[in-house]
Amino acid sequence: ADAALIDSQWAELERQAESVGVKALPLYGVPFAIKDNIDAVGWKTTAACPAFAYTAEQDATVVSRLRAAGAILVGKTNLDQFATGLVGTRSPYGAVPNSFDPAYVSGGSSAGSASVVARGLVPFALGTDTAGSGRVPAGFNNIVGLKPTRGWLSIGGVVPACRTLDCVSVFALTVEDALAVTEIGGSAPDERDAYSRQHPHTAPVAMPERPRLAIPAALEFHGDDVMARAFDRARTQLARVAELVPIDYTPFAELAALLYQGPWVAERTHAVGPLLINDPDAIDPTVRGIIDKGLDYSALDTFDAEYRRAELSQRIARVFDDVDALVVPTSPTIRTIAEMAEQPVQYNSEFGTYTNFTNLADLCALALPAVMRDDGLPAGITLIAPAWHDRALADVGRRWQALCDLPLGATEQPLPVADKEVIPPPSSACVRLAVVG
Amino acid sequence: ADAALIDSQWAELERQAESVGVKALPLYGVPFAIKDNIDAVGWKTTAACPAFAYTAEQDATVVSRLRAAGAILVGKTNLDQFATGLVGTRSPYGAVPNSFDPAYVSGGSSAGSASVVARGLVPFALGTDTAGSGRVPAGFNNIVGLKPTRGWLSIGGVVPACRTLDCVSVFALTVEDALAVTEIGGSAPDERDAYSRQHPHTAPVAMPERPRLAIPAALEFHGDDVMARAFDRARTQLARVAELVPIDYTPFAELAALLYQGPWVAERTHAVGPLLINDPDAIDPTVRGIIDKGLDYSALDTFDAEYRRAELSQRIARVFDDVDALVVPTSPTIRTIAEMAEQPVQYNSEFGTYTNFTNLADLCALALPAVMRDDGLPAGITLIAPAWHDRALADVGRRWQALCDLPLGATEQPLPVADKEVIPPPSSACVRLAVVG
Repeated sequence: ADAALIDSQWAELERQAESVGVKALPLYGVPFAIKDNIDAVGWKTTAACPAFAYTAEQDATVVSRLRAAGAILVGKTNLDQFATGLVGTRSPYGAVPNSFDPAYVSGGSSAGSASVVARGLVPFALGTDTAGSGRVPAGFNNIVGLKPTRGWLSIGGVVPACRTLDCVSVFALTVEDALAVTEIGGSAPDERDAYSRQHPHTAPVAMPERPRLAIPAALEFHGDDVMARAFDRARTQLARVAELVPIDYTPFAELAALLYQGPWVAERTHAVGPLLINDPDAIDPTVRGIIDKGLDYSALDTFDAEYRRAELSQRIARVFDDVDALVVPTSPTIRTIAEMAEQPVQYNSEFGTYTNFTNLADLCALALPAVMRDDGLPAGITLIAPAWHDRALADVGRRWQALCDLPLGATEQPLPVADKEVIPPPSSACVRLAVVG
Repeated sequence: ADAALIDSQWAELERQAESVGVKALPLYGVPFAIKDNIDAVGWKTTAACPAFAYTAEQDATVVSRLRAAGAILVGKTNLDQFATGLVGTRSPYGAVPNSFDPAYVSGGSSAGSASVVARGLVPFALGTDTAGSGRVPAGFNNIVGLKPTRGWLSIGGVVPACRTLDCVSVFALTVEDALAVTEIGGSAPDERDAYSRQHPHTAPVAMPERPRLAIPAALEFHGDDVMARAFDRARTQLARVAELVPIDYTPFAELAALLYQGPWVAERTHAVGPLLINDPDAIDPTVRGIIDKGLDYSALDTFDAEYRRAELSQRIARVFDDVDALVVPTSPTIRTIAEMAEQPVQYNSEFGTYTNFTNLADLCALALPAVMRDDGLPAGITLIAPAWHDRALADVGRRWQALCDLPLGATEQPLPVADKEVIPPPSSACVRLAVVG
């Protein structure tokens, strides 16, 4: 990060503090990082594609709101190129290593943002999540990843992946922090984002003390027995605090498959624009292979898939009539960076087993630390609920994090004492953030 | 209509009445008609295309609910083929004449449904409305056309035009009747329709006594000075009871143009299916010319247009931040059946000037009788508001209808005395319907 860009923020923050007072700046001086497909004025946005890079003339809306609340942007983070991937290896700037074992992938596409939070460099970082990019790397690095309801956090000033589905997401060490940052970033709808929505005042803020959680009746781990055993321990722990309701996962799996095996890849083609034609070699070959396919779909295909999306979403909505949330492994498996090079599409696709459907079905999701695998890597769980149930998910997530009481991220820091207590809804004046490392 | 199909309904209704009592049947014995792209068990559905016709094995959801409330289906009505048109002339069964002057078009595509209501043959009829098919024929026949919020009335059992946009609509002689029928038909979401939505309990039921109504600052009548003069009289009348706020109509006009000059025509192509390839001559040439174009669009085009739709819809939503509703001429002009044959696409397109954007922007609309043109044809106005403001529109519409106090439809019947009074919200037990003719 350019030191001058940080110094100027401090100078501006001091002026702000003098004028409005520190109490009006709930994130006063809190450092944060953003995925490098999100604009910050004066910083380069690369989307991990040097040929695509430009210097942003305006902050992304969410960045601007966090800075207005006193936060200091200290860096931009590596990602799967054009946010197309769940792995963290599809970047000319190198693969992001897992914060627990550098032989393993970090998960992506918001790889660097998850990594800097897990390593305690910043208390929170922004990612984006279209297919699961705000959750898979949270799971692989033992941190919290909140994928808010689509339209809550503006995508104004974010390089699109699939504009109809893209979400800005928040990584933090604690649920409390992730929600606090989301509340500030999503304080109002945004005219720069045509898919921005008004947060309904009637949105639920809590779940029952013993929530009913749907869980896939048949779980798929793609042969990863270590992950299967780890999730089994998480499930045992879950059964102590929730009622687990086995459900048929078929509509979720079918909808998940539509995301990359359907016309929505044409949104990625649209986003990359003329570069695909004019300078194809500038694009990562795996990413290009995916984005190229967007040219093959017709309008007829698109509406056909949209009808199927609507039908599957309706079936999924009915599942939620009977439960408070769905709980799944964040990822069914993990791979080494070396393995990933061998099967870059197949292994990536496996990581999305429990994430790819979420935005197509207009759901929100919260990835949470859960247990450690026998090999010392983290194994996360994700809670998923209908749109605008974010706060209710956070309520359950906070309790879960207090119950697990794991060290935070890849640090050795424990959960702050305050996060182990029952916490009232955040006040509008001041927000606690866990700063560690 | 097949007499046996009516007799069997009476027999069934008598059994129902014996079992639950007449008071539980708010539409007991009320005759109604439905557009012939809506299924009724045992009746043929043609969509005005004999080669497409089939005998329905199940009632459309809305039909089934109206029959369960005691209504008797007495006929199916002519339409622009595949509901593709706003004219009422694109049918192998003949053009539907205007109920005031048979030289003129009835408007469409729900031509027959508007006609039978205007002529007092039934107190209400169902239409469908994608581009304005539930409003233009209401305007041309001096009746009420309620185009409810998309997803309130199920499209289960309706031949699709554009499935993501289609609405079932209601024609009646009075606003009160149109709303009452909609409330019954939309009593709950429907699993047969993936785009069905839950009516929010918080939806507004009324508007201020003197509502603020946006009105296009520059009105387009496509050279029809008779219509311009008629609307001017309506506007003078409106200004007595509402505050008129001139607005820039540009985003509405741009969005309207997208409907037929964009990829949404591929939805129509999808709906017609293999017939377009296997038996193109079975399709009306004008309709085929439109539906053929759906083959030309790519997925990239589709998402590009979808982004534009979202941007324009957002601009339109901001207009409604400042007003209670938008008021427009239902149609800017009208044509004779002979004229329509000369410019079938151009004149049709002109009719949609004030309707085509509505479903793309997720708005609801209420077409109302307003004034008579100097040539004796009716000139209607339409009120348009954000999703789920249907009841609030009806509130204003009821007051407007009482103020105008015109003969109903093409009958000589006056507005019932009860409709001239301020009316409490409809009770769930019993519904008044104006039966005339």
